[in-house]
Amino acid sequence: MDKRIGNIVIGQSGGPTAVINASVAGVYRAAKDLGAAKVYGMVHGIQGFLEENLILLEEYLDSGINIEMLKRTPSAFLGTCRYKLPELVGNEQVYEQIFRIMEKYEIEAFFYIGGNDSMDTVKMLSDYAAEHGRKERFVGIPKTVDNDLPVTDHCPGYGSAAKYIATSLKEVIRDVQSTGLANPTVLLVEIMGRHAGWLAAAAALAKGDDCDGADAIYLPERTFDIDDFVDHIVEVAKDKNTIVVAVSEGIKLADGRFVCELGGGADSVDVFGHKQLSGCALTLAGIVAARTGFKTRAIELSTLQRAASHMASLTDIDEAYEAGYHGVLAASEGKTGVMVVFQRVSDKPYLCKEETYDIHDIANGEKTVPLDWITEDGRGLTREMLDYIRPLIMGEVLPVYVDGLPAHLVRH
Amino acid sequence: MDKRIGNIVIGQSGGPTAVINASVAGVYRAAKDLGAAKVYGMVHGIQGFLEENLILLEEYLDSGINIEMLKRTPSAFLGTCRYKLPELVGNEQVYEQIFRIMEKYEIEAFFYIGGNDSMDTVKMLSDYAAEHGRKERFVGIPKTVDNDLPVTDHCPGYGSAAKYIATSLKEVIRDVQSTGLANPTVLLVEIMGRHAGWLAAAAALAKGDDCDGADAIYLPERTFDIDDFVDHIVEVAKDKNTIVVAVSEGIKLADGRFVCELGGGADSVDVFGHKQLSGCALTLAGIVAARTGFKTRAIELSTLQRAASHMASLTDIDEAYEAGYHGVLAASEGKTGVMVVFQRVSDKPYLCKEETYDIHDIANGEKTVPLDWITEDGRGLTREMLDYIRPLIMGEVLPVYVDGLPAHLVRH
Repeated sequence: MDKRIGNIVIGQSGGPTAVINASVAGVYRAAKDLGAAKVYGMVHGIQGFLEENLILLEEYLDSGINIEMLKRTPSAFLGTCRYKLPELVGNEQVYEQIFRIMEKYEIEAFFYIGGNDSMDTVKMLSDYAAEHGRKERFVGIPKTVDNDLPVTDHCPGYGSAAKYIATSLKEVIRDVQSTGLANPTVLLVEIMGRHAGWLAAAAALAKGDDCDGADAIYLPERTFDIDDFVDHIVEVAKDKNTIVVAVSEGIKLADGRFVCELGGGADSVDVFGHKQLSGCALTLAGIVAARTGFKTRAIELSTLQRAASHMASLTDIDEAYEAGYHGVLAASEGKTGVMVVFQRVSDKPYLCKEETYDIHDIANGEKTVPLDWITEDGRGLTREMLDYIRPLIMGEVLPVYVDGLPAHLVRH
Repeated sequence: MDKRIGNIVIGQSGGPTAVINASVAGVYRAAKDLGAAKVYGMVHGIQGFLEENLILLEEYLDSGINIEMLKRTPSAFLGTCRYKLPELVGNEQVYEQIFRIMEKYEIEAFFYIGGNDSMDTVKMLSDYAAEHGRKERFVGIPKTVDNDLPVTDHCPGYGSAAKYIATSLKEVIRDVQSTGLANPTVLLVEIMGRHAGWLAAAAALAKGDDCDGADAIYLPERTFDIDDFVDHIVEVAKDKNTIVVAVSEGIKLADGRFVCELGGGADSVDVFGHKQLSGCALTLAGIVAARTGFKTRAIELSTLQRAASHMASLTDIDEAYEAGYHGVLAASEGKTGVMVVFQRVSDKPYLCKEETYDIHDIANGEKTVPLDWITEDGRGLTREMLDYIRPLIMGEVLPVYVDGLPAHLVRH
């Protein structure tokens, strides 16, 4: 191998996922394969970097077993941040500080694993480097359960969350269907995704020979109509006594209000006068109960869905690792101001290849679910959507169980 | 083997668990081993039985593979009910109907898998049989995630739920700890158990070399004090910026009110005037936010925790199966009016044996967590509690994955 790379630094940013650490593992392995003397980790992303809060990954990843453990550890091993770099003009000292630290540690390349906002950091720093004739390279590694980064076919983190969502939905559907109640029961399952419905769409995977699936799935890409929603439940209840509805947390009414805001209005206070915070599933459960008299239950998958490494997709773990590995290869070839993207070659058999793409076309962008992948009635997903998601959830990575529980690799 | 048994019927009742079907598998296998011609299943428990809603389990369990699939299927394969038999006096026709159906199908023994209320059914029917000189036998098979049946060391269903709870808690703790916020964040995780804290106690398992565990765990066995709870959070927040609290849904104030009732009071309505239903974690999150200004997040594990067969404990699955098997052996020896119980012989190595016990000492009873297994400050569990739970979560049963998701065995 003739490519080489010097010291590098890697950071994690934004909301964590089940496989974000696999990308750290991929970056580390590639850097070592290319001769890097030192692989630094930013503790809590660029925010930690600015304070020189760095660790040497060699101290943790000196064995193949630890690298495998890291791949099985959910959330951000290095810690994340939500810090957004300020505009250059008037804040030059922040940028100078970053490059001073890179010089001090002789860092040649900077890898940042994250979503939309995090890619903005890669863009700002690579732009600064270009304008100031700096040689350091800046490469983004995609990561987001929301799957909403532009250009790339999909984002590492999404497949594992989708696998968890569909698995959990199958299980709670079995649970609610086991009761033999005469009075209908409505189960509402709330799934993450404030602006894009990719995660909620994964609910469609549950349906199969052994599961009826959800009776309706609502995505934020379509306007949510409460009357239509309740009418549909009443209609379904004519034929069966358990009704299951999956909703994205981001569904909105025609007037632009989030459904979850309805339940948290000024009138919604508890006996202490505290404002009640509640999700959209809980809000809708209240509405269904009031209008139909049906029994309701709301389940919010919350951070469980992005942290469930025990249910990670092997495809997702492998791709997260490969994304990190590919990013280092690209940097070693002199690329900068790019993000690693996946280009799908085919669905069946599933084949994806990694490339890099100009960060300016990605940072701060957002990719939502194509409207023609949502069924006309707005309550389901098409075959194209299922063909798109299915390969991403395939395969399993077994946790290493210690004393009956999955073990994780953590910083001291 | 010289023991024999004729036709039998089996039913499932009450809230489902991840392993309730393993007991059906155990009953079926034992009945077949003892020569039973027909093994009937009640669809939706005694309620379905009264309507002769029966299936032949031979149609589903004719292969070893299907039996293994049944063991990997959460919730009640046969369907459950919450029907409680009426008192005998004045309702003789209900009892006569049951025995008429048993005669019609030549059923010798009746097995009922369930918790406290379900064991009442076994008691009533075995009492009736004794008083009327009937030869049919009635045997209870314990099942409840709540783990609150008396006499038995523990109940099938509990170990798997405990494994899921501790695993999920480890994962969401990793998630919340990854953020590098300066302002403290309080994560509140709500766990099932209205009257007994066995499930919430499982949160104590999360703590270990790779996890700080919860900063407090509150069980319904101790009175909950809101001031003390908030003070403790403020105290913990002096040292770290993520605070994790696990609470049982059944925690109560000194005046007897459930904490979850506070958030659902008369003043708690949404903009439509609907009463808001919310759990105790959400209620407490509102209180913490209002009093401390800390960021809060509430996660309710809801039915996920009792349906998560993908995270079932091998020990639990095996014991659920053995409980069913042992029940049939007992019936074949002429036992009736009994429930199968586990007697623990030792913790290390873990050893439990099955026995049967008089149903009169079990039905409608309730076993809560011993007060001396809760630490003096009321916020943690002792080593004895951990030694008690740990063996019950050991081992894993791999799901059979089809198209990336765990497959289940379901009725047509």
